[in-house]
Amino acid sequence: MSLELELPSLQQQFEEVIAGNDPLAIAEFLNEQNISDVADLVYNNTDFEAPIIANMSIHRASAVFKILDLSVQKQIVKELPPNKTAELLNDLPPDDRTDFLEELPNAAIRDLIKLLNPEELKITLAMLGYPEDSVGRLMTPDYVYVYANNTVTEVFDTIRKHGKNSETIDVIYVIDAQGDLLDDIKIRDVILASPDKFVHELMDDRVVALNVNDDQEHANDVFKMNNRMALPVTDDNNKLLGIVTIDDMLWVANEEFSEDMQKMGGTEALNEPYLDTPLLRLFRKRVGWLVVLFLGELLTASVMGYFEGELRKAIVLTLFIPLIISSGGNSGSQASTLIIQAMAVGDITIRDWWRVLRREISSGVMLGLVLGIIGFIRVLVWHSIAPQVYGEHYLRIAYSVGFSLIGVVLWGTLSGSMLPLLLKRLGADPAVSSAPFVATLVDVTGLLIYFSMAYLFLQGILL
Amino acid sequence: MSLELELPSLQQQFEEVIAGNDPLAIAEFLNEQNISDVADLVYNNTDFEAPIIANMSIHRASAVFKILDLSVQKQIVKELPPNKTAELLNDLPPDDRTDFLEELPNAAIRDLIKLLNPEELKITLAMLGYPEDSVGRLMTPDYVYVYANNTVTEVFDTIRKHGKNSETIDVIYVIDAQGDLLDDIKIRDVILASPDKFVHELMDDRVVALNVNDDQEHANDVFKMNNRMALPVTDDNNKLLGIVTIDDMLWVANEEFSEDMQKMGGTEALNEPYLDTPLLRLFRKRVGWLVVLFLGELLTASVMGYFEGELRKAIVLTLFIPLIISSGGNSGSQASTLIIQAMAVGDITIRDWWRVLRREISSGVMLGLVLGIIGFIRVLVWHSIAPQVYGEHYLRIAYSVGFSLIGVVLWGTLSGSMLPLLLKRLGADPAVSSAPFVATLVDVTGLLIYFSMAYLFLQGILL
Repeated sequence: MSLELELPSLQQQFEEVIAGNDPLAIAEFLNEQNISDVADLVYNNTDFEAPIIANMSIHRASAVFKILDLSVQKQIVKELPPNKTAELLNDLPPDDRTDFLEELPNAAIRDLIKLLNPEELKITLAMLGYPEDSVGRLMTPDYVYVYANNTVTEVFDTIRKHGKNSETIDVIYVIDAQGDLLDDIKIRDVILASPDKFVHELMDDRVVALNVNDDQEHANDVFKMNNRMALPVTDDNNKLLGIVTIDDMLWVANEEFSEDMQKMGGTEALNEPYLDTPLLRLFRKRVGWLVVLFLGELLTASVMGYFEGELRKAIVLTLFIPLIISSGGNSGSQASTLIIQAMAVGDITIRDWWRVLRREISSGVMLGLVLGIIGFIRVLVWHSIAPQVYGEHYLRIAYSVGFSLIGVVLWGTLSGSMLPLLLKRLGADPAVSSAPFVATLVDVTGLLIYFSMAYLFLQGILL
Repeated sequence: MSLELELPSLQQQFEEVIAGNDPLAIAEFLNEQNISDVADLVYNNTDFEAPIIANMSIHRASAVFKILDLSVQKQIVKELPPNKTAELLNDLPPDDRTDFLEELPNAAIRDLIKLLNPEELKITLAMLGYPEDSVGRLMTPDYVYVYANNTVTEVFDTIRKHGKNSETIDVIYVIDAQGDLLDDIKIRDVILASPDKFVHELMDDRVVALNVNDDQEHANDVFKMNNRMALPVTDDNNKLLGIVTIDDMLWVANEEFSEDMQKMGGTEALNEPYLDTPLLRLFRKRVGWLVVLFLGELLTASVMGYFEGELRKAIVLTLFIPLIISSGGNSGSQASTLIIQAMAVGDITIRDWWRVLRREISSGVMLGLVLGIIGFIRVLVWHSIAPQVYGEHYLRIAYSVGFSLIGVVLWGTLSGSMLPLLLKRLGADPAVSSAPFVATLVDVTGLLIYFSMAYLFLQGILL
């Protein structure tokens, strides 16, 4: 069953229960629903955001809270009584709590962490100390660990004692007396083993671990390449600090792609939902690149000024300027997007630059030929309809336009494909070689290509 | 520990072992390494691709095979002896096997499925019958199911009997005698329960299931909103068909974002890695949109032709044409990317169009003002340096340029932000309102805005 089908009636049920005004009935109703359905109710009933959370059992309340959007989370924390907020914060998984806190202004963090009990406070402060986008911010200390000389029976005892709050027990971690990570064992193998077997007999010494300072993007790759639901996190001395579960990776992947896309559209990464971004901040994130591009684009006015004499002699040349520079921009946008995307998913590395260049030369020539031929035909057709526009030299004009298009498209394709690789080589983020950036670069050079072709075909005739 | 640190020495070890030419030593060496390390060895030793796979225990061979790139997988299958290929295909998890097969040409599929044993063949044919991008293609029939009247002891027996091949045993599925899905229970709760408890006592009747025909994108959302490592898949009659595990979602998210990005760059989705796409196919995926954009852009030549008389009278106007149309294009690219991205991650729906419009009007005016003022100043500064270029009417020209920029940027921002919402409303994919598409649209209208402003400020003077 798809979830959507059940929503309308759920909302009606909710309204009925709320109308009844019986706290117990409300709590009972909410505790019966799926976490995601309750989250939908929160979104659809903005007047009851905080009451919905407050009326659920605390463990379920925190499960709902952690999947809500930041703006709604903030609203709820503002409306909840402090003791409820304390309960909620203390029950949130440490990674989600850190996630939530790091989005708040410093003053609000100070107020909120006062509500944490000493143990949770210690964990949260530790996690807030790791760099943003590091694995440390994602990890949770809620996992099950055992020792190599434990028996299977003892492992089960440990799970019964400590497994209630752990994020997963699909994998159990084996440490030594110093807290060093030795291995991970699957719960499956524990269940399949006879009760008197020792943990070290189940170990295969093939543990894959993340460093607490690793980039989250790296963690994402490790998860994709290793078939694990969770990975242990260690410090530089191989001490086990926590685990990261694969569900966090879905959010990491989402965030990374959002940032890449925004940069490629010529904006700084927003890092928050569009509608939640205050208008002035949205403006600031956009205006920077737009001004840089504009300053670059100002060069087109200089180039045009330089050729003003030619334009005056052959005004017909101006008619094709937007067409030609845009074609270069479009083919450049295509190429840069393809390459940035292929680099983002790891299909291409800098070492492939030569293969990319060869492919893009062929692609650029083919694409340029197609547009060049269409452009050439366009001039001939127009001339046969309205001969006065291009005059007696229409054929030379057609050649100028056609060959310029081939040159501009080839140039757009090459610069669009090489620029991301070059930026990467220089240690910059390839995603900033966005479509608008490449288009601007190609506009200026496109004009030069066009005027050169015009000289070639029209010198001594119109020019 | 990060993975990369170990790689160099691993490659050396591998070369030593290979040089020894002892099949047993090679097998032993390979079986000791991590799956992802072996995958790296395959990539780094293209001469030994097939031998590496052939020399590993079959279960580990298939674990490596499934994370390799398609082109390498094809190569390996070509080089492996048929009996090894058969073993490998039969051991691959059904979802990965379907994934691999669906990328091959039909003839190759026919050859390969002959190698499957009857049971695996049935599963594979069933999965190949579900629509591409449906949940059915991702599911695996390797899961553990129990009945409501089983005791905890019986559940453990079932796990011992059937759990070896299941993709996860974090969650166990409860069905009735007809095979209908009743609930899922966590292995954690089973372990924590006393051995004589019944399964129905552990059930909470809060199962979240996917329909086999659901879109994979939908599945991704459900995983993000529900804290599960795996979700059951049912048909329309609630029969349990298989499960989908969250690790598959990482790949789905990757693919979706790749498609979105490529479309936004003005290319059809490649659906395969850039370097593996044959040149002609790459050309075909790119040329379509480029020609459409070019035909749209041809309108700029018509518009320019229409105003040829004005251009002849005031050649100075032509100098700013590339600047003005590009500024509109850039602001349009920004806006469309922001909105497409926000829609892709669910921050914005069609219903928010009015809020988006209001925000973008303000943003557009502010951004336009900034560029307009810079453009205005540029003309004044240039005039003070070289008074002959713009002549005595430089101030009117500066006003024309400045106000055109405000108008064009506002128009670019509005069309860039509204177009994705409009396309979505019409049932089309918002990602096709790509940066190049918006830029082309804005080019044509940008010229009209510019010439209108020029009339306003220069009519009777230059025009």
